[in-house]
Amino acid sequence: MTQNIAILGASGYTGAELIRLIATHPSMQIKALSGERKAGQSMASVFPHLRHLDLPDLVKIDEIDFTDIDLAFCALPHKTSQEVITNLPRDLKIVDLSADFRLRDPEAYAKWYGNAHSAVEIQREAVYGLTEFYRDEIAGARLVAGTGCNAATGQFMLRPLISAGVIGLDDIILDLKCAVSGAGRSLKENLLHAELSEGTNAYAVGGTHRHLGEFDQEFSALAGRAVRIQFTPHLIPANRGILATGYVSGDAQVIHDTLVKQYADEPFIEVLPFGETPSTHHVRGSNFCHIGVTGDRIEGRAIVVAALDNLTKGSSGQALQNANLMLDLPEAAGLMLAPCFP
Amino acid sequence: MTQNIAILGASGYTGAELIRLIATHPSMQIKALSGERKAGQSMASVFPHLRHLDLPDLVKIDEIDFTDIDLAFCALPHKTSQEVITNLPRDLKIVDLSADFRLRDPEAYAKWYGNAHSAVEIQREAVYGLTEFYRDEIAGARLVAGTGCNAATGQFMLRPLISAGVIGLDDIILDLKCAVSGAGRSLKENLLHAELSEGTNAYAVGGTHRHLGEFDQEFSALAGRAVRIQFTPHLIPANRGILATGYVSGDAQVIHDTLVKQYADEPFIEVLPFGETPSTHHVRGSNFCHIGVTGDRIEGRAIVVAALDNLTKGSSGQALQNANLMLDLPEAAGLMLAPCFP
Amino acid sequence: MTQNIAILGASGYTGAELIRLIATHPSMQIKALSGERKAGQSMASVFPHLRHLDLPDLVKIDEIDFTDIDLAFCALPHKTSQEVITNLPRDLKIVDLSADFRLRDPEAYAKWYGNAHSAVEIQREAVYGLTEFYRDEIAGARLVAGTGCNAATGQFMLRPLISAGVIGLDDIILDLKCAVSGAGRSLKENLLHAELSEGTNAYAVGGTHRHLGEFDQEFSALAGRAVRIQFTPHLIPANRGILATGYVSGDAQVIHDTLVKQYADEPFIEVLPFGETPSTHHVRGSNFCHIGVTGDRIEGRAIVVAALDNLTKGSSGQALQNANLMLDLPEAAGLMLAPCFP
Amino acid sequence: MTQNIAILGASGYTGAELIRLIATHPSMQIKALSGERKAGQSMASVFPHLRHLDLPDLVKIDEIDFTDIDLAFCALPHKTSQEVITNLPRDLKIVDLSADFRLRDPEAYAKWYGNAHSAVEIQREAVYGLTEFYRDEIAGARLVAGTGCNAATGQFMLRPLISAGVIGLDDIILDLKCAVSGAGRSLKENLLHAELSEGTNAYAVGGTHRHLGEFDQEFSALAGRAVRIQFTPHLIPANRGILATGYVSGDAQVIHDTLVKQYADEPFIEVLPFGETPSTHHVRGSNFCHIGVTGDRIEGRAIVVAALDNLTKGSSGQALQNANLMLDLPEAAGLMLAPCFP
Repeated sequence: MTQNIAILGASGYTGAELIRLIATHPSMQIKALSGERKAGQSMASVFPHLRHLDLPDLVKIDEIDFTDIDLAFCALPHKTSQEVITNLPRDLKIVDLSADFRLRDPEAYAKWYGNAHSAVEIQREAVYGLTEFYRDEIAGARLVAGTGCNAATGQFMLRPLISAGVIGLDDIILDLKCAVSGAGRSLKENLLHAELSEGTNAYAVGGTHRHLGEFDQEFSALAGRAVRIQFTPHLIPANRGILATGYVSGDAQVIHDTLVKQYADEPFIEVLPFGETPSTHHVRGSNFCHIGVTGDRIEGRAIVVAALDNLTKGSSGQALQNANLMLDLPEAAGLMLAPCFP
Repeated sequence: MTQNIAILGASGYTGAELIRLIATHPSMQIKALSGERKAGQSMASVFPHLRHLDLPDLVKIDEIDFTDIDLAFCALPHKTSQEVITNLPRDLKIVDLSADFRLRDPEAYAKWYGNAHSAVEIQREAVYGLTEFYRDEIAGARLVAGTGCNAATGQFMLRPLISAGVIGLDDIILDLKCAVSGAGRSLKENLLHAELSEGTNAYAVGGTHRHLGEFDQEFSALAGRAVRIQFTPHLIPANRGILATGYVSGDAQVIHDTLVKQYADEPFIEVLPFGETPSTHHVRGSNFCHIGVTGDRIEGRAIVVAALDNLTKGSSGQALQNANLMLDLPEAAGLMLAPCFP
Repeated sequence: MTQNIAILGASGYTGAELIRLIATHPSMQIKALSGERKAGQSMASVFPHLRHLDLPDLVKIDEIDFTDIDLAFCALPHKTSQEVITNLPRDLKIVDLSADFRLRDPEAYAKWYGNAHSAVEIQREAVYGLTEFYRDEIAGARLVAGTGCNAATGQFMLRPLISAGVIGLDDIILDLKCAVSGAGRSLKENLLHAELSEGTNAYAVGGTHRHLGEFDQEFSALAGRAVRIQFTPHLIPANRGILATGYVSGDAQVIHDTLVKQYADEPFIEVLPFGETPSTHHVRGSNFCHIGVTGDRIEGRAIVVAALDNLTKGSSGQALQNANLMLDLPEAAGLMLAPCFP
Repeated sequence: MTQNIAILGASGYTGAELIRLIATHPSMQIKALSGERKAGQSMASVFPHLRHLDLPDLVKIDEIDFTDIDLAFCALPHKTSQEVITNLPRDLKIVDLSADFRLRDPEAYAKWYGNAHSAVEIQREAVYGLTEFYRDEIAGARLVAGTGCNAATGQFMLRPLISAGVIGLDDIILDLKCAVSGAGRSLKENLLHAELSEGTNAYAVGGTHRHLGEFDQEFSALAGRAVRIQFTPHLIPANRGILATGYVSGDAQVIHDTLVKQYADEPFIEVLPFGETPSTHHVRGSNFCHIGVTGDRIEGRAIVVAALDNLTKGSSGQALQNANLMLDLPEAAGLMLAPCFP
């Protein structure tokens, strides 16, 4: 049976990525696409790479009849998202790709995002969307909150290690290299080709990146005590991909074993042979996450590296994976595209 | 019924692209992969982006049992390809991606490739693999010769115009902008990132590029007289994509009408609205070709621009499209992936 | 004797490039920098790559005392430029980098730029700033109009050939590959890294690019009759550089001889040996222009390719070269930086 | 008085960079250039971006008459370098850019480079070439060993902090992002544009990178005890630039003060205002190193980030700076080029 899908905020990169993936999904049909500023335009004009698809034109959200919509992806900016979702039918299944429902504690939300949450009731029913760790809750959820793309990458690497107690909790460092599409289709000087290509820089240095809210929430819950990691993202001249380099204390071989065991049956998480390291080149355009573990020359120190595509496994692919669960479809439907290399 | 597939020369980019596409093909299974120098290695080590797939290891060609192979893709260098194919079973269906069987005239082959053809008998049965124009012959062929990627781009633009007689034949100029994967995975100084990124240059200037042999053969056959075009390729700092800018004499509106009519029912060729121009960004990783037509300020002159992905529609996607026809499968099977943007 | 310099519009790329060049100039000192929207900011905050220099902060133009300024570079947007220059002291030497004073005919200006010229009197005294062809006039000028970067590239290639009468005038085609800094530091979607990297497209197709006004003016004057060329620019994923591929009728060897002779004594124009082709990689960050000539396989057809850095020889380097002449300084002062490769 | 210069190994990137810099040096003249495999070729054919310079052709080293050479830059591969230098005149001043004379302990050399050192006598007289910290020794040296580019970046950040005792010595982590020219002009698959652009990966993970030998030697000497840092380099899709992100324990403000004080009078080291972070974009093509310090949200933890151009300050610029000292020339001669941005 075909499921009817709406995508709110379809004029951004995560919206386009959802459409790209759903285009090969055997049992989803896109019924409505919204884009407030570009309402009235065809998707072929907004995203010419989708011109071969038979897609509805962009409309404003309040023009959409949600009666026959089975699930809506909400790819709107944070803050806008909570306002919009508040006004959607209360029985509509929703996968939200914004930051609005990721943090369970409204105070944490206010601290990291600078404004009080306006839909605290709804937030209570939201399930955190890291599929591999919340699968059952997601399958039964009405509202799933997609994770941050950096937050997903770090958690794939660190959650099993924290849970298993095989690494120290007080000296975890995550150094991320992030492609530019994570910043969205926004007109900022530092996102121009002339400013970004051929170089790199750190940003949100010193523990100010909002995805730390997710790390704090999730890692502390796993450890049963407060866990605070160091996390520095860097902008690299690429369009897709996050490479997370994790510096941890622990036995590298035990760490590797823990990850291998954790992900043995996961379709999308590949743990490389011990001593090999992943590359964002090898996950581009796909829903896969590659993880590698190496021991350091310093006894008791290990380096764990994870790579995924921020738009796919880090965002829209994760969202589709969750939607499949919520609609009782095969979890990997529409998601087995091989990476696009070179 | 599943078709058993072999890929000879699977350690290069076109081989990897075939695997990427076949990975989502509903009725093909890869049974053998060859790579002479990398025989014995797993595909995960040669192309880590394919590590999630259950693929046979690379072997030498003479280790392959072709008994149960339904079709072989031959992604070997030219000259090697004719030698290998000569020794394959004479009833094996083959799609060759090399240049060896593109030119029907052995003298033309010798002129453009610098060596006599060693398999003239086999060449006689080869069908030129430009799907949209040789569909029926391909469906019945045993051996299909994939076109050059530049040659495909230029022909999608120009064949209908030459056939319809709507452009002048003696002043056609094709200026191509080509991504680097067209040069293959070869270790040459000018293909290094440090030499290629952030700049561009022309190459094979003055009518020396080998794909001219195909243009000469095909366009002359269509026109019923010798046609010689000017063709200058340029290397641009990108991994996938060819943009062909064609300068022709003729009425731009008639040219547009001719192309629209020609490709009205084609699943992979998109003619843009008059006055719009395509971008390689919008076909990346897909089997689509976008074509745009614009009139020049100079009366009677038009600019036609075509864009495709050299590894997909220009090579491996075309090959799979042809294989589908040869195996009586739906022509678009495995090929409806949307472009990967951004 | 040190010359005092002001740069109006110093927060854009051509302004920054002027500062980079002047930083090593033995007899110029930067006394004032303007930037209306960023007035009050230090150059270190606007362009951190210039932080080692002792530069004045950005101010608004009307805060500048021009009394002791010997020459002002005006790197403002067109239309703004004519308004500003109208109000500058009438004896101040000015090199304008905008489009406002390039076209001698006010009607041509209105046609290409869409608004009437508001400073027709001043335009009359402007000298067209293509140094190698207007050297004497520039040396005596008060106001020099820097050329368009595409217009400079095309003229270096074609002027000597038109003057010498060695090419046909009615079938000249210029296909340009342009780096993105030519579009300035402007916030447009198509200039984002995610939209531009890894692909290419044509723009201003069909004879609509404004630099055609310069080609028409200059080539017609040289030929003594109307000359209209075809010109298609393409955006390539690079930050600096223009590669112009010219398709002309004529004897390639004669064309080469003509260019060699023309530029024999020029410090910045290098004509390559016959049959070699230039690359934008090899002029990046420098004031050099490389030109190559090749004969086509079609008798009587030649391909001429020119490469320069749009920000240097195409804009700010040219401007400094002209300023040197106007101030009676050595023409190459501050301009002999070797290209930055790789 | 003009100093006569030879460059051995002039066909690689560091050789070309030396020529680029020396081209604007007021008192150096290049008298000889060697390149064993490309002997007999002109520099214009090996590096077309240098074609405007009047340079000697490449010769084999044994063809060079060193009688009138004042100083030789040796830009050869390690191991080759020690063999060549052994046979050079014993009074010839030499700046070696290879790894051969960086490590004072022959056993350390053997450990990191896998072969016994064959010129131990000569090594004894070598001075480590980190200009800002060995200035006096360099001025009096006959042989200076240029540092590793990564080693330079890390030391600019960490030396003053270790010397001043303001950071912990047992938990220093350096995460580097390195442009590809650091790997030289070598034909390796992972350096191809198609393999490198649009992605990133770690390499030499786990404490295996050879530059650790330099860190160990220098930091231990400064601390008066063994210091072992963790160091992971990453390859990013850019041609020039190293960004080093350092994670240290200590008071961020004290760290900043220490660096500001250390570098107050240095012409090439810029310490940014507290809380700002550098970018490789802003040092490209220049001899500058930018360093920024930020406090982490975790009390007592700081992030220090340093950026430089590996070919300039990390290699050839450093070499020229040292040569200036050895020849009693102004230290910054030929080195004040502003970065090339964008």
